[in-house]
Amino acid sequence: MEHQKGRVTIPTDMDVVKDTIRLSQKWGADAVRDCDGTEFPTELKDAGLKVYATYYTTRKDNAWAKAHPQEIQQMYVMTPLCTACGDKLRIPLMQGLHPDMLQLNTRDDIARWWEVTDRSTGEVVPVTDWSFDEAAQEVTIHSIPFHDYTVSFLAYIIWDPVHMYNATVNGWEGVEHQMTFDVRQPLTHAFTMKRLENFIKEHPYVDVLRFTTFFHQFTLIFDELRREKYVDWYGYSASVSPYILEQFEKEAGYPFRPEYIIDEGYYNGQYRIPTKEYQDFLAFQRKEVAKIIKEMVNIVHAHHKEAMMFLGDHWIGTEPYLEEFAQIGLDAVVGSVGNGSTLRLISDIEGVSYTEGRLLPYFFPDTFYEGGDPVKEAKQNWVTARRAILRKPVDRIGYGGYLKLALDFPEFVDYVEAVCEEFRQLYANIANSRPYCAGKVAVLNCWGKMRSWGCHMVHHAIYFRQNYSYAGVIEALAGAPFDVSFISFTDLLEHPDLLKAYDVLINAGDADTAHTGGEWWCNPAVSSAVKRFVYEGGGIIGVGEPAAHQANGHFFQLSNVFGVEEERGFTLGYDKYNWEEHPHFITQDLEGGADFGEGTKNIYALEGTQVLIERDRNVQLAANQFGAGRAVYISGLPYNFVNNRLLHRAILWSAGKEDELCKWFSKNPYVEVHAYLETGRYCVVNNTDETQETVIYRGDGSEFTIVMDAGQILWYEM
Amino acid sequence: MEHQKGRVTIPTDMDVVKDTIRLSQKWGADAVRDCDGTEFPTELKDAGLKVYATYYTTRKDNAWAKAHPQEIQQMYVMTPLCTACGDKLRIPLMQGLHPDMLQLNTRDDIARWWEVTDRSTGEVVPVTDWSFDEAAQEVTIHSIPFHDYTVSFLAYIIWDPVHMYNATVNGWEGVEHQMTFDVRQPLTHAFTMKRLENFIKEHPYVDVLRFTTFFHQFTLIFDELRREKYVDWYGYSASVSPYILEQFEKEAGYPFRPEYIIDEGYYNGQYRIPTKEYQDFLAFQRKEVAKIIKEMVNIVHAHHKEAMMFLGDHWIGTEPYLEEFAQIGLDAVVGSVGNGSTLRLISDIEGVSYTEGRLLPYFFPDTFYEGGDPVKEAKQNWVTARRAILRKPVDRIGYGGYLKLALDFPEFVDYVEAVCEEFRQLYANIANSRPYCAGKVAVLNCWGKMRSWGCHMVHHAIYFRQNYSYAGVIEALAGAPFDVSFISFTDLLEHPDLLKAYDVLINAGDADTAHTGGEWWCNPAVSSAVKRFVYEGGGIIGVGEPAAHQANGHFFQLSNVFGVEEERGFTLGYDKYNWEEHPHFITQDLEGGADFGEGTKNIYALEGTQVLIERDRNVQLAANQFGAGRAVYISGLPYNFVNNRLLHRAILWSAGKEDELCKWFSKNPYVEVHAYLETGRYCVVNNTDETQETVIYRGDGSEFTIVMDAGQILWYEM
Repeated sequence: MEHQKGRVTIPTDMDVVKDTIRLSQKWGADAVRDCDGTEFPTELKDAGLKVYATYYTTRKDNAWAKAHPQEIQQMYVMTPLCTACGDKLRIPLMQGLHPDMLQLNTRDDIARWWEVTDRSTGEVVPVTDWSFDEAAQEVTIHSIPFHDYTVSFLAYIIWDPVHMYNATVNGWEGVEHQMTFDVRQPLTHAFTMKRLENFIKEHPYVDVLRFTTFFHQFTLIFDELRREKYVDWYGYSASVSPYILEQFEKEAGYPFRPEYIIDEGYYNGQYRIPTKEYQDFLAFQRKEVAKIIKEMVNIVHAHHKEAMMFLGDHWIGTEPYLEEFAQIGLDAVVGSVGNGSTLRLISDIEGVSYTEGRLLPYFFPDTFYEGGDPVKEAKQNWVTARRAILRKPVDRIGYGGYLKLALDFPEFVDYVEAVCEEFRQLYANIANSRPYCAGKVAVLNCWGKMRSWGCHMVHHAIYFRQNYSYAGVIEALAGAPFDVSFISFTDLLEHPDLLKAYDVLINAGDADTAHTGGEWWCNPAVSSAVKRFVYEGGGIIGVGEPAAHQANGHFFQLSNVFGVEEERGFTLGYDKYNWEEHPHFITQDLEGGADFGEGTKNIYALEGTQVLIERDRNVQLAANQFGAGRAVYISGLPYNFVNNRLLHRAILWSAGKEDELCKWFSKNPYVEVHAYLETGRYCVVNNTDETQETVIYRGDGSEFTIVMDAGQILWYEM
Repeated sequence: MEHQKGRVTIPTDMDVVKDTIRLSQKWGADAVRDCDGTEFPTELKDAGLKVYATYYTTRKDNAWAKAHPQEIQQMYVMTPLCTACGDKLRIPLMQGLHPDMLQLNTRDDIARWWEVTDRSTGEVVPVTDWSFDEAAQEVTIHSIPFHDYTVSFLAYIIWDPVHMYNATVNGWEGVEHQMTFDVRQPLTHAFTMKRLENFIKEHPYVDVLRFTTFFHQFTLIFDELRREKYVDWYGYSASVSPYILEQFEKEAGYPFRPEYIIDEGYYNGQYRIPTKEYQDFLAFQRKEVAKIIKEMVNIVHAHHKEAMMFLGDHWIGTEPYLEEFAQIGLDAVVGSVGNGSTLRLISDIEGVSYTEGRLLPYFFPDTFYEGGDPVKEAKQNWVTARRAILRKPVDRIGYGGYLKLALDFPEFVDYVEAVCEEFRQLYANIANSRPYCAGKVAVLNCWGKMRSWGCHMVHHAIYFRQNYSYAGVIEALAGAPFDVSFISFTDLLEHPDLLKAYDVLINAGDADTAHTGGEWWCNPAVSSAVKRFVYEGGGIIGVGEPAAHQANGHFFQLSNVFGVEEERGFTLGYDKYNWEEHPHFITQDLEGGADFGEGTKNIYALEGTQVLIERDRNVQLAANQFGAGRAVYISGLPYNFVNNRLLHRAILWSAGKEDELCKWFSKNPYVEVHAYLETGRYCVVNNTDETQETVIYRGDGSEFTIVMDAGQILWYEM
């Protein structure tokens, strides 16, 4: 078989010119890139490789930043809650913050842009009742004794948080702190367009401007010890300035309040049920950010270059799943692939010519040290991502970091070659066709499309004990044979017929979070629409505390749909008799038992519900018929292969499609099948690091047995 | 030493006359009683024993009940939630209920006394939109599709639930179902007074009328399979009738709604934050119940007999801790002793001449069978109760059941003799003096005094997985050397100086329950009063989710007092660094480690808080300084001796009294010391079934070492 080429990006640096050429041939790379901390060797510009250049829009020009301090980027910060012990309370604003990173914005009118709040009452303290001591950097409040207070204020980001992080972890001594500047503001805006044009002119060999990224960093704050203090990959707190907010006021038609961003100190994190004002603000930001990116893309295109966006760092405001994004005209998006969900986060983006996934490991010394095992991490990453790629491929893959480090690991270099080859083969075999889907699934939450594949995510692909039992559902779906949509409660209200498009709804998360919806369920239009959907034959799967909000005599507002309820003390007086476990279609492949992760305690089944698994009188898994439809309750579902199968079966059962299980299906849950009816090909993948034997069912139900090598993918013609 | 006599009640029956006399001498009993299912042998009337006669106020006269069906007792019941699938919904009322126990009340105007509720909106369905089909016993609702509905209705209690239970568990065949009648209603009221007078006249040898009990059974419902369906030892649902409710309406000055009793189907269980209307209803019931009990007591007294109330069964409306009770003029209260808390529930009652605790085991075949070990249960019961008796003794103890059964267990008969002797000795030694208290503790919740010692209790002394980790705090306090009060948020509002009377406040339970207070903490008068109390030097101990309600940027409304917060997804973006455990005064006796029971997940410590114990990044125990005061957070505290010690130390530390630890104190936590300064005596008790060695500290700090036998109590002069 001829060695294929293309669809792969290789990193380079000054010291690895020859190796770059050698490995690009071995891996079949057709593009080369520089990275943070590397330089592009101009000797490579004629090597027949497409050249990517990272481009930083908001930093790496301190001269400009210092000359225009009013256009340095800003963020809203809230102090911790302080209790007044008398009628005078002093709150130091910079406590817990690093003065190298943040500097109070006293340039703009603090009476207008800062806000002091009585957190015992939720009321704003009148500006006449507080004052600011610039020397001490403290606000003094005329306080009510033993009320709690916070100050919300604007601060300049005088050291780019990512640069600060890199400098800190790499122990860079004497490096100048890169200041940020705000491309949205008038002078910097004009400057930026010229700066970009100059960069392009000065780097004629560059084919692709790889923007890292645009204007606003996701929220990232370091504390006085330079430790990470707060991070939200989806956070908009650092996308503000009086200049921007005055425009927002005009657009929204109501006065801005710092609280819209501060949100009691929760900064509108993804778990918060978004307020109308925050949604308005996001919409405004998306529109404005798109407008200026489009200007930059136009410049890139005018020079016959491509514009690629890195989905990370300063990506705030781009929201690749919403309509403004597709209008920008970007050529490509590249993002880091941490798992299946983050692969789909990239590959499902529409409105660009191509997408690229940066695989792990990054060629950094934390993995590539003597005695390290980068192959292990690469295998793990590839096999995890591959499930998702087989559902919706990125168009390219690539690597990042210092190529030199990888050279010392020939086994790794060989493995990457195999991955590149395997990727090109699967890409060719899929050939842009849609894979076979056993059903249409919609994940229902407060965010819908905007947080597609990223719901439950706090920091990019980072584990949290509080979210892995829910994020596992999204991860399973990322590689499962279902057509997955993300819809919001607002979608549901605006399009009453929306649910007709789906076989199964999923609502997963803790009570009273944006993931389950909280008070939304007290809107009868929402609860009735979902009950009607199930009653008329739809399926629903609830994980954790689905549709939960304490009201009207139940905590699970769909308690009689799911047939389960959570004991919160209020129903202790009711005797509970339904604990017997029943064998079921859903639990048939659970050898070794399901892992419910953090699970949810105190769940009991109502009469008539089929308990499938209970542990210590906590129902973990239950199934219930509701009208013509079916509901499945799961207490938590971390991602693993057995749970993936459990979810697969739960979806089919709730959709009433148990009969369709053995269709493009592997009996062994460690192996999966993906079929492409349009191209007439299907593949079988061993997702594990061990040999697997399984029975494979074709689309017509016919079967055959195979034994597969660890991690193997096998392609068949239908 | 002379064998003492008195303070003990022995049960009897027709078949054990001689044994009653023999055992009464052996045990030193000075009173004899009949029991449910036993007859009093008149031969005993001159045996020199005080004679108790159980008296049933609301049943055991079916002729009367049948002749006055309109005065049969009633209860409010809510159907389960039903979802309408179209514009017509039929809800069967008796589904899940037993027709032998409950009968719909269609005699009174159902349009007025029943209520159909749209549980999707919380709104009442107009009576014009529903109708009742008497034949089918169904309500038909003109419904909104996919809204949920319930029907609240009145039903007659045609079989007394306790009688039904006894008949069912004992398999009584052909026994006539004892109907209930309502002494509060006019005809039965008049009848009852005569009936009581007649009973007294017909039983001249009876000295004490042991009322079992008065008018209203705590809520107890059996299902169609005669299984317990719902129970609430504090429930008022079965204390209603249109006759009573019309009076309530007049008194309250606003129209009654069934929802005031139904409470979304939660029936105002103790975990619910009580509404104003329910509190009004309780106050009305207490007043009216007291009035009629007083009439009965007057009759008893007119015949020179004593009136004793059994704290159980139909005790609803008496509320022994509220002011109406003391005015009744009862001579005595007797109650079952399940543990230390239920002992204090009896012994702390004021306004009666004496209290009596019925110890366990009851002489029933479930314990007294061949091969059974009643001594083990008796020891467990006695040692558990003794801690509490030593803080505040009941005046008498007694036993119940079939004496005949006990005769076959001579070892048990001997053990009871020892218990009786030990009880009389401790009673004499205490001699009504107050034991030494190391501090004043107040338990703060929504119920305050009314649920003294019984807070967290659903059914009398019954374990629930959801409450043992909180009830353990109350159980520990029941026998601990502290002066314990129970106060409510209303008390706190009405008496701003109230907290000055205490050293330490305790708030224990799950969030948004009556035990922690929920929304009460959003009242700045409440939160400020508590913060001021701690700031000025008070102590506070929070268990579980203290002061928790999601508002104003925190879940724990006292998060900066306790120095801990619960992660509910909203603060995942904040990095948490404070996990290091610190040695502390509070944890010094924790050999083997504390048992936090169900605990509370996702608790993290704020900066500056001392984490004492964390498990898997869940803080279990933490201490924090707040102003001049101190706060302790505990994730859960089931009752055991080590936890008892932990709480003891937490109270002393939070009160700033660590220096007073070794004062009337045992180094070994399995042994306790109780000192009576007025009588100049103190005792040392081994609470375990094993030999214990310990160092005992006297009040002056001097110490001595002793080895104690299992369960031993030793008395000393100071």
